[in-house]
Amino acid sequence: MAPTQRFTLLVEVQLRAGISDPQGATIERALPGIGLDGVSRVRAGKAFRFELSADDEAAALLLGTQVAERVLANPVIEDATVTVTGPAVAG
Amino acid sequence: MAPTQRFTLLVEVQLRAGISDPQGATIERALPGIGLDGVSRVRAGKAFRFELSADDEAAALLLGTQVAERVLANPVIEDATVTVTGPAVAG
Repeated sequence: MAPTQRFTLLVEVQLRAGISDPQGATIERALPGIGLDGVSRVRAGKAFRFELSADDEAAALLLGTQVAERVLANPVIEDATVTVTGPAVAG
Repeated sequence: MAPTQRFTLLVEVQLRAGISDPQGATIERALPGIGLDGVSRVRAGKAFRFELSADDEAAALLLGTQVAERVLANPVIEDATVTVTGPAVAG
């Protein structure tokens, strides 16, 4: 039987520690020039939100992790953090 | 006196509801072809993490929101969600 529960998920993808992040570095350098001081360690990553069908939250997390690892992140240089943010609102 | 507390922040930038998201749509169409079914409403956004100096958490949120609105998001088509994720770890 197909799973009938819908869940909403968030996948955050960031470059692994130690991997150079030119986009983050460029943002960091631009901020003092517009009066925003004291910002450091800027890292620029991606945030994906989606819905999926699963039997329970654990199954939703498992499927979401497969989506993250196979499609959303490049595991050579990126880490993906998968979070089930709640049941999907109907409609 | 310059603020001495350091905070870590997360800014999530997503296209506003109703704005077309071709990257999300492309990911969604690709998933059934590799055996990952039941995923819908894929939205592709950005996630920025950084540290900043502020006197307290409210001031950190205010400065983080300025960074988000002036540099990280295009307010015409994007929404930014700013979260203070904690005090920065020294080092």
